[in-house]
Amino acid sequence: MLFAKPLAELIAQLERLPGVGPKSAQRLAFHVLRMPTDDVRRLSEAFVKARESLQLCSQCQNVSEGEICEICSDARRDDSQICVVAEPRDIAAMERINEFKGKYHVLHGLLSPLDGIGPEQLKVRELLERLRADIQEVIVATNPTVEGDTTALYLAKLIKPLGVKVTRLAHGMPVGGELDYADSATLLSALEYRREL
Amino acid sequence: MLFAKPLAELIAQLERLPGVGPKSAQRLAFHVLRMPTDDVRRLSEAFVKARESLQLCSQCQNVSEGEICEICSDARRDDSQICVVAEPRDIAAMERINEFKGKYHVLHGLLSPLDGIGPEQLKVRELLERLRADIQEVIVATNPTVEGDTTALYLAKLIKPLGVKVTRLAHGMPVGGELDYADSATLLSALEYRREL
Repeated sequence: MLFAKPLAELIAQLERLPGVGPKSAQRLAFHVLRMPTDDVRRLSEAFVKARESLQLCSQCQNVSEGEICEICSDARRDDSQICVVAEPRDIAAMERINEFKGKYHVLHGLLSPLDGIGPEQLKVRELLERLRADIQEVIVATNPTVEGDTTALYLAKLIKPLGVKVTRLAHGMPVGGELDYADSATLLSALEYRREL
Repeated sequence: MLFAKPLAELIAQLERLPGVGPKSAQRLAFHVLRMPTDDVRRLSEAFVKARESLQLCSQCQNVSEGEICEICSDARRDDSQICVVAEPRDIAAMERINEFKGKYHVLHGLLSPLDGIGPEQLKVRELLERLRADIQEVIVATNPTVEGDTTALYLAKLIKPLGVKVTRLAHGMPVGGELDYADSATLLSALEYRREL
């Protein structure tokens, strides 16, 4: 008996979370014991509420409180552009730059044949269905990785024949980065996609 | 609006935990959305249960489910030795070496005058009260740090005049290290070579 049962149970539950090892689980659990009871209750409820009240938006597949998410139901946003991302958190990254005013589509993953993830495991069919409406451009904003590249090329092949423009976020040097520290792949694509000044 | 409200709320709650930054809070929250609902409910309940059902053992001040903890109520344990530790997790470290068969006392901190932590902020009075019974030895198992050393010397000064032997874990442990992180072999020899103060 190392810890009292409810404490041991909390530690065990915390250890199952990604990135939480035995030591951090212990530290978190002891922190919880010192927190005001109301704060613990709020934290506890936040888990269940998030899990139970959220669903996928029937249009863009983003995590949403209602059947249609706030972005999709926002009339001020441009219906003619769809930015395709891998995960809901990528929408947050795009929204932070406060520049894109179109709508989104979340694939919930990237193509990865070795891991058994094909188009059927992703929200590709749902994306194609949206293209029946008057969409002019699909911006593929997947990560510049092997899986992201594969997925972008796959989507372009599917969508271009429908007469919809397909673009992709530029690859290149990160702003503020140093040439000297850039990896070769980044530098290579920065050179390849150089633009005229 | 970066995230749906219940998701944003969960992220905000997670960010308040020690060692959880904005990125890990996001990652944890999205993990929760993919967890089976039952698992989320179990995790959620573990927080409240740990916080609400635990108290301090009236004897050793360890975190306990009942008024007296399992170690204090274990008749097979030696009543004549008390091992004094700073935190409840230090008891777990001691119990792992499976060698000490006496009882414990948790100070809930260490003397640290600069941080305003004096004997009144620790469970020192409670320790002295326990010495009225037939205690033969107090083993001070505080960390080998400045605060741990100070606390050990302070306790020795208080307790030795009462005719109780006061010992301390041997400095076989790396100086500046923490009890909680010591491997069992190191802790075992530290217990074996404890010396009288």
